[in-house]
Amino acid sequence: MPLLFWLVPVSAIFALGFSYFFFKQMLRYDEGTDMMKKIAMHVRKGASAYLKQQYKIVIIVFLVITVIFSILAYGLGVQNKWVPFAFISGGFFSGLAGYFGMKAATYASGRVANACRQSLDGGLRLAFRSGAVMGLVVVGLVLVDISAWFIVLNLVLPETGDGFKLMSITAIMLTFGMGASTQALFARVGGGIYTKAADVGADLVGKVEADIPEDDPRNPATIADNVGDNVGDVAGMGADLFESFAASILASALLGAAAFQAHGLEVQINAVIAPMLIAAIGTLLSIAGVFMVRTKEGATQKQLLRSLGFGVNMSAGLIVVFSLLILYILGLPNFLGLWGSILVGLLAGISIGQSTEYFTASAYRPTQKIAESSATGPATVIISGVGTGLISAAVPLAIIVVAITLAFFFSAGFTFSIENLNSGLYGIGISAVGLLSTLGITLATDAYGPIADNAGGNAEMSGLGADVRKRTDALDALGNTTAATGKGFAIGSAALTALALLASYFEEVRMMFVKFLDRPTELINGIPAIEAEFIDFVEHYEIHLMNPKVIVGVLLGVMSVFLFSGMTMNAVGRAAMKMVDEVRRQFRTIPGIMEGKAEPDYARCVEISTKGAQKEMMVPSLIALLIPVVVGLVFGVPGITGLLVGTISSGFAMAIFMANAGGAWDNAKKYVEEGNFGGKGSEAHKASIIGDTVGDPFKDTSGPSLNILIKLMVMASVVTVGLAVSYHIL
Amino acid sequence: MPLLFWLVPVSAIFALGFSYFFFKQMLRYDEGTDMMKKIAMHVRKGASAYLKQQYKIVIIVFLVITVIFSILAYGLGVQNKWVPFAFISGGFFSGLAGYFGMKAATYASGRVANACRQSLDGGLRLAFRSGAVMGLVVVGLVLVDISAWFIVLNLVLPETGDGFKLMSITAIMLTFGMGASTQALFARVGGGIYTKAADVGADLVGKVEADIPEDDPRNPATIADNVGDNVGDVAGMGADLFESFAASILASALLGAAAFQAHGLEVQINAVIAPMLIAAIGTLLSIAGVFMVRTKEGATQKQLLRSLGFGVNMSAGLIVVFSLLILYILGLPNFLGLWGSILVGLLAGISIGQSTEYFTASAYRPTQKIAESSATGPATVIISGVGTGLISAAVPLAIIVVAITLAFFFSAGFTFSIENLNSGLYGIGISAVGLLSTLGITLATDAYGPIADNAGGNAEMSGLGADVRKRTDALDALGNTTAATGKGFAIGSAALTALALLASYFEEVRMMFVKFLDRPTELINGIPAIEAEFIDFVEHYEIHLMNPKVIVGVLLGVMSVFLFSGMTMNAVGRAAMKMVDEVRRQFRTIPGIMEGKAEPDYARCVEISTKGAQKEMMVPSLIALLIPVVVGLVFGVPGITGLLVGTISSGFAMAIFMANAGGAWDNAKKYVEEGNFGGKGSEAHKASIIGDTVGDPFKDTSGPSLNILIKLMVMASVVTVGLAVSYHIL
Repeated sequence: MPLLFWLVPVSAIFALGFSYFFFKQMLRYDEGTDMMKKIAMHVRKGASAYLKQQYKIVIIVFLVITVIFSILAYGLGVQNKWVPFAFISGGFFSGLAGYFGMKAATYASGRVANACRQSLDGGLRLAFRSGAVMGLVVVGLVLVDISAWFIVLNLVLPETGDGFKLMSITAIMLTFGMGASTQALFARVGGGIYTKAADVGADLVGKVEADIPEDDPRNPATIADNVGDNVGDVAGMGADLFESFAASILASALLGAAAFQAHGLEVQINAVIAPMLIAAIGTLLSIAGVFMVRTKEGATQKQLLRSLGFGVNMSAGLIVVFSLLILYILGLPNFLGLWGSILVGLLAGISIGQSTEYFTASAYRPTQKIAESSATGPATVIISGVGTGLISAAVPLAIIVVAITLAFFFSAGFTFSIENLNSGLYGIGISAVGLLSTLGITLATDAYGPIADNAGGNAEMSGLGADVRKRTDALDALGNTTAATGKGFAIGSAALTALALLASYFEEVRMMFVKFLDRPTELINGIPAIEAEFIDFVEHYEIHLMNPKVIVGVLLGVMSVFLFSGMTMNAVGRAAMKMVDEVRRQFRTIPGIMEGKAEPDYARCVEISTKGAQKEMMVPSLIALLIPVVVGLVFGVPGITGLLVGTISSGFAMAIFMANAGGAWDNAKKYVEEGNFGGKGSEAHKASIIGDTVGDPFKDTSGPSLNILIKLMVMASVVTVGLAVSYHIL
Repeated sequence: MPLLFWLVPVSAIFALGFSYFFFKQMLRYDEGTDMMKKIAMHVRKGASAYLKQQYKIVIIVFLVITVIFSILAYGLGVQNKWVPFAFISGGFFSGLAGYFGMKAATYASGRVANACRQSLDGGLRLAFRSGAVMGLVVVGLVLVDISAWFIVLNLVLPETGDGFKLMSITAIMLTFGMGASTQALFARVGGGIYTKAADVGADLVGKVEADIPEDDPRNPATIADNVGDNVGDVAGMGADLFESFAASILASALLGAAAFQAHGLEVQINAVIAPMLIAAIGTLLSIAGVFMVRTKEGATQKQLLRSLGFGVNMSAGLIVVFSLLILYILGLPNFLGLWGSILVGLLAGISIGQSTEYFTASAYRPTQKIAESSATGPATVIISGVGTGLISAAVPLAIIVVAITLAFFFSAGFTFSIENLNSGLYGIGISAVGLLSTLGITLATDAYGPIADNAGGNAEMSGLGADVRKRTDALDALGNTTAATGKGFAIGSAALTALALLASYFEEVRMMFVKFLDRPTELINGIPAIEAEFIDFVEHYEIHLMNPKVIVGVLLGVMSVFLFSGMTMNAVGRAAMKMVDEVRRQFRTIPGIMEGKAEPDYARCVEISTKGAQKEMMVPSLIALLIPVVVGLVFGVPGITGLLVGTISSGFAMAIFMANAGGAWDNAKKYVEEGNFGGKGSEAHKASIIGDTVGDPFKDTSGPSLNILIKLMVMASVVTVGLAVSYHIL
């Protein structure tokens, strides 16, 4: 084991240590008045209740899948025997990260509101560092899991001398990503349905029918709405990026083992640990970045944004330097090309974030046009939001196209052949790692959003003074901006990660092929069997586009995306409808509720959202898990490869469309509220509110759930590759 | 030339003859009162003005493309020298068909209104037979063009003896589909924007602001709205299906020439003319079917639908029998399997139509649910329409998956290999021909819709009695049902045709490859060079899914779909906005307009729609034409193949989503108007009207335009294949 590798567990310990430190530090702050404490407690209890319920279901699902994996591994022998354990560990650590992150967020928001009674800087620092608890615990636990498995498998598996040991180790480790994927599926889909059922339900009755403002304590769904921010944007986003972070590192490790198999064991292991090391250094730089975020009293929103940006950009800038250093020290062939691939990943992430901002911020034409169309009523708001959202999907797609082309060619040279395929795919993998390397701090800015939002809610409900509200509003507005770019980042990284996973899928097929033939070292016509088989496999499996099975696969991939997003969209509608009924019932039956004399039954609304989310997430989740397996059993590997390409491409586009349309509607409404086209209370404002409500499930349920879908379908295919290779009908 | 071939020109003459007969017959009917004549004249003039303007632009585009093709053919030598001429002929005949069809429709609608003053049966027969003018002129002109080229090329090209002559003939003929595609692009996109700009504009000011009913003569945009039905649903739909009909026959002919090249010249030519013959017989059966449509006075909507259905189903039923007969007479190997493929195509068309009906008719749960959600306001109507529309896309995708799998395997046997690839692809092509064979009558029912709609408009504006209105309403309601299933049929056939075209693209690449190597008859290792090259090409071009260029292509294909649909959607928004301004201006400045004393300036609104449509269609159309060329020049054949697969798969899904969501919103509104959830004038009704307005560009602009996009991109790639093979950067 190279000495440098130990940097990975060390940085994991640092990340977890600082996460704990920030958590303890936050707990020392005062939670404010009794009213503030009570509200925070309600939200905390609601969030815990939801998480408990979700984990119950997740445990059942994990049990079932583990049994299936055990049958595949020990019964049919089409899978490595370590897979069930790796799967469980990924799910466990992802769940743990979600638990800690949400705990931190729900303990923090009341305290942030209270800190805002003193100063803006105090509020920002507290909110951001509480967000950092989530960010660091996610990257820390990923690195712990990676380090542990790498050490154990390295000790346990026998040395083969031909580079196959590292291939096996990395292939096994990749399956812990499947555990993280499954956990993320339920967190994102369930959380997404929860948060929007509560939000849409609260708005439709509260704002529209009863004419009371948002976050009004008289609205029975308001606590559920605040809980929703935590379960959707903290736990859901955390699990999503946990998976991307883990999967991009693990896929790159496998691709590295394959690409440098012929270069000798030392180079090969260096290629394997390179992505881990970049992630480790990025984590240390994230911790440093967190300490750089501070602001002064009376800061404008621009200044606040700059404070956050300073920390993030410093970390990203330094990783550019350090990654070159690492690649140089590791002595990988063409280390400059690989460094180019990393830069490409970083730049792709930044560009996607900027395009998201352009299409969703009210400072630019697209969102202003949507706001303008509110003058002719809700129909034109919707039409122009859909139109702009669809167009906006083209930009990130183009960015990813340029990114994977460059990442491939930088690391493989500017011609394409079967021979340099592996190095090129390694380049794509490592560019995803580059994009995600400073996740610790990026995720902190994401988790900051809902904390600030909840702090605002707490301040509103507790009836704090206007000056405090102004401060929490400033923090909240900042959170909305980071949320939009954070969504772009999450989708972009999901797409790159999925492509890296797709590349590693081919490796897994190759290994299966070699394994079944059981002659990895034999020579065929002077070429090592492994290479001959690989070339043969390309033809044998006929994963080219003239094979109707591949085309059928692509069609099924697109089908999965449309089906999945339609189902999650309708799920929100149904769950919100139940919430509407309950809020109406409480307004009708609880005397004194509208005068603020009687307390609404918050817990009942939390329960409805929880149950609705749990019930509604089952079918779409099962579809996501089952489709790759079924397609594999019917159409074999060609069908699967088509399926994955179809899912990734159309899922990515659909996710961007939904996130951007939703974000633009949201900000178009705010733009009208700022006094444009008639301002608050005008007909245009009403039209823009309808646009915003339509956008809610777009941007917070169906859109983000697609991030998971595209990664999970590849993951599920990777893990069940042995099944598809051994048994298929056509 | 086999004797049977002459059935093709004969049936073409029959189709054109009966078309002329129905047209003359229709002209003999009386156009009614002076008011009726005046309105019909307004609509006719508006439609002609639009068509003239559109053809002006189309001619310029055709000139430019012809120059480019001439350079490619005569300058660079990367294209056959006949291509420019074939291209022009396709465009010319498609334009001619659109001109005649629209002429018939605009002469008919007033007469149908007048016929309804006597009886329902008279109205239905007249409307339907006028629709048949369009249906028969489309299929007739396609068959004329095909016959003429086949005869000429057969005489002119030298005999090679190895089956290459027929490959060349069919490859050249395929490019006349490119002319039809280009014509269809402008007809569908321009017509789609026109019709919805007028419709949305008329509704937003007329229905919503001025509170006057639809088709009210006081509304200045009402003539433009009626013109729109003709340019969108008659000319646009006609050009769309002209292209599908031509392309499916031509692609199958090429695939047949390739699949049976090794079977001797006689079998080969029989395989080539088989799709032509099936289309010819289908055309004769369509004429017979038209005569079977009649009804009696006081018929319910169900009975009316059954009358139409009887004609359509009889034609379809008989083609099943006759196609078996033809395949048997032609003596093709595995003729039973090929017949199976034809049946699969027919069944796929019917199933897609039925799924469209299930998801859009108010008799079923999905649309009722959308109507139900109107009780909680416009936001939930939109959310549930989008959700249901997305889910509904999954069904036709699944149908197409099953269809191409079965069509392939029926004609190629149940294993897949490079060797049986061509027969399988021929099966897919011929299944598309099966689906489209009775287009003559199917298209008659499509064109019937806007004729009945305009008849209703004419009756309303001319102030005819309630009994006449009741009859035209019955015809119109029937038209709405046939329009929905017609859309499903158009999309389904576009998808199958595009897949057949994709298959023929591979043939074109193979021919280019052989041509450049200039040794088609040489033997390599005992295999004819052509086969060896073909196998080599699969590897050489690396069109498999591990090649990042292919993946990049798929991403770019998905990108094109999102970009194109977003642009057409926004185009409607912008053009409608101009219409709104104009209608408001007329209401404000023309005194006495609201009292019905002064005539509005209809012509001005027609002009605005025309100009808006012409301006807005340019950019999306250019994108559709340029993307395949640019991708070919950068990424070569692998990029193109990915591009096409990405475009077809996601474009098909998006088209269905948009058509079904739009149709469901439309019928949900009607369901509310029937008295459900509060009925007319309720808040729920207002919410459902917003859903309907949003749905307008979905179902009539962006959705149908995608049919063209998916076919045109493949066509453009087919025609410029020599360019992509000879020159590409990566």
